[in-house]
Amino acid sequence: MERRLPGLAASRGLAFGPAVTFRAVGELRRVKGTVASEKQALADAVAASLQAVMALAGSLEGEAADIVGFQVALLEDDALTESAYAAIDRGMPADMAWRQAMAEEIAGYEISDDLYFRARSADLADICDRVLRHLFGLPELTQAPGGAVIVGEDLPPSAFLGIDWSQGGGIVLGSGSPSSHVAMLARGRGVPMVVGIGSEWQAVSGTVIVDGLEGLVLTGPSNESIERARRQADELGRSRSEAEARRDEAALTRDGTRIAVMINVAGLADLADLPAKACDGIGLTRTEFLVEHALRDEARQFETYAGLLRWAAGRPVTIRTLDAGGDKPISGYTIAGEANPFLGLRGIRLSLRHPEIFRVQLRALARAAALGPLKIMLPMVTMAQELEQARALLDAVLAELAAEGVAHSAPALGIMVEVPAAAMAIAGFDAAFFSIGSNDLTQYATAAARDGSEVATYADVLHPGVLAMIGHVARHGAEVGREVSLCGDAGGDPRAIAALLRAGVRAVSVSPGLLAQAKAAIRDVDLSERKPSA
Amino acid sequence: MERRLPGLAASRGLAFGPAVTFRAVGELRRVKGTVASEKQALADAVAASLQAVMALAGSLEGEAADIVGFQVALLEDDALTESAYAAIDRGMPADMAWRQAMAEEIAGYEISDDLYFRARSADLADICDRVLRHLFGLPELTQAPGGAVIVGEDLPPSAFLGIDWSQGGGIVLGSGSPSSHVAMLARGRGVPMVVGIGSEWQAVSGTVIVDGLEGLVLTGPSNESIERARRQADELGRSRSEAEARRDEAALTRDGTRIAVMINVAGLADLADLPAKACDGIGLTRTEFLVEHALRDEARQFETYAGLLRWAAGRPVTIRTLDAGGDKPISGYTIAGEANPFLGLRGIRLSLRHPEIFRVQLRALARAAALGPLKIMLPMVTMAQELEQARALLDAVLAELAAEGVAHSAPALGIMVEVPAAAMAIAGFDAAFFSIGSNDLTQYATAAARDGSEVATYADVLHPGVLAMIGHVARHGAEVGREVSLCGDAGGDPRAIAALLRAGVRAVSVSPGLLAQAKAAIRDVDLSERKPSA
Repeated sequence: MERRLPGLAASRGLAFGPAVTFRAVGELRRVKGTVASEKQALADAVAASLQAVMALAGSLEGEAADIVGFQVALLEDDALTESAYAAIDRGMPADMAWRQAMAEEIAGYEISDDLYFRARSADLADICDRVLRHLFGLPELTQAPGGAVIVGEDLPPSAFLGIDWSQGGGIVLGSGSPSSHVAMLARGRGVPMVVGIGSEWQAVSGTVIVDGLEGLVLTGPSNESIERARRQADELGRSRSEAEARRDEAALTRDGTRIAVMINVAGLADLADLPAKACDGIGLTRTEFLVEHALRDEARQFETYAGLLRWAAGRPVTIRTLDAGGDKPISGYTIAGEANPFLGLRGIRLSLRHPEIFRVQLRALARAAALGPLKIMLPMVTMAQELEQARALLDAVLAELAAEGVAHSAPALGIMVEVPAAAMAIAGFDAAFFSIGSNDLTQYATAAARDGSEVATYADVLHPGVLAMIGHVARHGAEVGREVSLCGDAGGDPRAIAALLRAGVRAVSVSPGLLAQAKAAIRDVDLSERKPSA
Repeated sequence: MERRLPGLAASRGLAFGPAVTFRAVGELRRVKGTVASEKQALADAVAASLQAVMALAGSLEGEAADIVGFQVALLEDDALTESAYAAIDRGMPADMAWRQAMAEEIAGYEISDDLYFRARSADLADICDRVLRHLFGLPELTQAPGGAVIVGEDLPPSAFLGIDWSQGGGIVLGSGSPSSHVAMLARGRGVPMVVGIGSEWQAVSGTVIVDGLEGLVLTGPSNESIERARRQADELGRSRSEAEARRDEAALTRDGTRIAVMINVAGLADLADLPAKACDGIGLTRTEFLVEHALRDEARQFETYAGLLRWAAGRPVTIRTLDAGGDKPISGYTIAGEANPFLGLRGIRLSLRHPEIFRVQLRALARAAALGPLKIMLPMVTMAQELEQARALLDAVLAELAAEGVAHSAPALGIMVEVPAAAMAIAGFDAAFFSIGSNDLTQYATAAARDGSEVATYADVLHPGVLAMIGHVARHGAEVGREVSLCGDAGGDPRAIAALLRAGVRAVSVSPGLLAQAKAAIRDVDLSERKPSA
C-alpha cells in the first residue's frame, strides 16, 4: 500500500495533501473529429481560456494586469482564431491548427522592429499553452485546491507563480533539479519540494507526503507515516517559529563572529511584509523581470531603484545589471539557437554588445544613487577588460548627467564572481566589491547544468574544488579589504552554511523567505571549532 | 576592389584559391511545382545522390565502406521514396515530402531495441541531407576543385572529412570557433582556416586569400597582397620544413628541459605515415568513433587497441574511455534534449550509467594491456567516487578475465582533468596519472562554449584563471610524483606553449599534424628566463 519514492530534496519542509497532476502540452496530440467538432472544440477552449484570464485580471494590478489585459485582447481577436479555423477547414485537428496559427503570430512578433512587440512573444506562448490545456481537458493549475501537491515531469516557473500557495501544498517532480529556478521559487515561498523521482511521478495519485527534508515521496501513506510527517512538520514549524522570532536580530556565530545577512529580490513586491531592519541590506536585485519590459525606459527603472533605496532606509542596495541569456531569454535581445546557452552570450557579455540598452540602465542607476548607497554589480564577468569597459560606460553616463544638470552620484562598481576562471584570477579585477554567485559558479565549476535533473548530484557547492574557489576569493577580499559576499541559495542552506563560513565568507544574501532560517543556521556554527569530520 | 574581412585565426597557414560556397540545407524551402515536376525533382535528386555515394564507395575500405554500402542500400530502397511520393501526391513540395519521409524512418531507427540500428540513424540523416543538397542544386563538397576555399556560415565535421584536401585549400566561416571540432580537424590536416567573419561570408566569391596567421580574409586581393601571401606561405613552408626535418628528435627547451610530446589519435588510420619514434607515445586515443559502431563488440575494440600498441612498440598508449555526450551524441546511448549538453551527461557520467557497455570496453582494454604499456584515461571526472567506481568495475573485469583464463594485465588508471572543480580538488583523486584536457577545461572555466562562435574570444586557455588551474594540477603532480600531461590544441599552439610550460606542464599531447610544430615551438622557449612582458 504505502510506497516510498526516493528523489532529491529541493525545498525543505513537509507537505501532506491530494496529488494534482500537471502535464506539459508539448507532446500531446489530439485525435481528430469532424471539421465541425474540431471548430467547436477550439471555440470552447478559447472561450474557457478567456474566462480564466479575465478572472485573473480582476485580481492583479500594475504590470501583471497589463500583461493579462494584453492576453484578453488577443483572445478576443477574431483574426487569430480565423486563421486556425481555416486550417481546420483544410483538414487539421484543432490542436495542430491552433499551434500553427499561434506559431505564425509569434514569428510575426519576433521579427518586429519594436522591442515592445518582440517582448510580447512570451505572452503569446503563454496564451497558446493555456488554450491547448483547455483543448486537452487539462485543469488549469490556478484551479488546484488549496494545499494540493502538484505532481509532474517538470514545472515551469510561470506555472508555479499561477498557483495559490497560501494554504500550503507541495511539489513532486519526475525530473527537475534542486538548483532550478522553480526550486528557488519554492524555497523562497517555503513550499516543500522533491525532484528527480523519475517516471514514477506518473503513478502518483491520492494522498501524498512530500518529505523535503529527506528527499522522499510517500504515496498511500500508512497512518504511522502520516503521524510521523505531522510530528516532523510540527517540529519544523516550531524551529521555524523560533527562527522567525529572532529574524530581525543580527546574525552571530556561536563564537561571536558577525555575519552580514542580506536579501535577494527581483522588485518591490518581494519586500511587501519585510522591515528593512530584518537584514543588512539588499545583496542582489535581479533586474531581468523589471528591465525586460522597460529596456529603454529610464524613468520606470529609476522609480524601481529609488523605491528599493527608500525601503532600505540607508542600508546598501546592490543592483545587478541585466543578466539575460542562459535560461533567461529576452525576445529580441538575447540570441536564439545557442547549443549551450549557459556557456553562451549572457550577462555582461550581452550588455557590452548592446551599449544603447546598457546605458539606459546605467543612467537610471546613477540617478538613483543620489538617493542612497546604491551599488552596481556586473554579472558573468570573465575578463578584467569587461569590468573596465563597463566602468568607462558608467563614467561617460556620469559625465553626461553632470552636463545635463541631472541629480546623480557615482555608485560603487562591483562584480559577480560566478565564472571559475574569474574566481581564480580574482586579483586581476579592480572591483569595489565581489559577490560570489554560488549557483552559477557551482554549475560551471562542476560542469553540471543547474537545471539538468540528470546531473543534479554533480552540481554541489560543497565540492572541495568549488569551496577552494570560494575560499580563494574570500582570502583575496580580506587581503585587499574589499567586501566579499555570497549570493545564491547556498547562503540560506543549513547544510552548506558552516562550510561556506569556514571558507571565509562573512556576508551572504538569500531570498527573503530564507532570511530567518539562514540566520538560525549561522547561529549554530562555531568557527573556533575544528571542522567536524563528516 | 580588395576587401579585408577580419575574423579569428582557427588554423595557421595561408591559402589562396577560388571560393566555393557551402550552404546548410536546414533553412532552405523549395517553391512547389506540379505534382509531376516535384516527383521528378525528387527522383533526380535521389539518382544523383546514389551515383555520388557509389562513386565514393569505390574509393573506401573497411568501416567507412560499410557505412557507404548501407547508404547505397537505403537509396536503392523503393519503400523510402514511395512514402515521399505519396506525400507529394497529397500536395507537399518535394523537399518537405523527403524530409518527412526521412524523419519517420529515422524515428523508427531511433526507437529500435537494436543498438546497431539506433547507431545507423546518423547515417540516415547524412542521406537525407545529401538528397536535399541535390534537390536545391547545391554542389556536393566532395566535388569541390582541389585547392578551393570552402566558405560558409558553419561547416560540420562530416563535410570537412568529405573534402579532398590533398591539393591544399582553406576554410572561411561566418560563425564557428577556433576551438570547434572542425577547427581541430583543420589544424590536424594543416588546412588554413579563419572563423567568425560574420554575415560577410555570403558575399565572398572569386579568388580569396585565407590568412590563418592574422585571422584575416581578403577578397578581390591586389597583386601586392597575393605576392605577400605567397611570400608568407613560402616562409611558413620553410619553417615548417625545418620543423618537419627535426620532427623525430626529442623536444628540449632552450635551457635543456625535456618535454614529452605525445600524439592524439582516433584510430589506426591517424598513424598511417608516422613512425612511432617521432613521439613519446600516444597521449590520447579518442574512442567515440571506434566504439560508436562497436559498443558491445569486445573483439573489435581489442583489435584496435592491440594495433595501437603494436604501432607504439613499447611506448605508452593512453586510451580514453568512451567520451560520448556534449557535442558527441551517440544515438541510443546519450540522452537527447538536454538544454545544455556540455553541462550534462557525458564521459564517465554516462559510462557509469551504462556499466554493461562500459564493461565491454574495460575488458577489451585489460586484454590489450597484456601486449604493452596501455593506460586507461577516464573523461569528465568530477568527483573522486567516480574514479573509485570505475576502479571497482575494472577490478571486477580483471578478476573475471583471470577466472576465464584469458590473457590480460592491469592497466594504469588515470583521469582527464577538464572539470574546474576537479582541477582545484586534484589532491583528492588517487589517479595513476593526470591529463589536463585544455579545450574542455577552458570552456568550463570561462563559461564559454568551445563551439560557440559568439563567445570564442572568452574561451582562452591563456586566461590567468585557467593557467592557475593548470599550474595547480602540475604542482600537485610534481609533489606526488605522478605524470601530468596536457592534451588539447593548446599543447600544439605556438602562442600558448610558453605559458603552459611556465605553468609547470612537462608533457603535451597533440594531433599528429601538429607534432613537428609543437616541438619547434618548445625549442623556442627558455624556462630559465623570466616571463617576458607582453
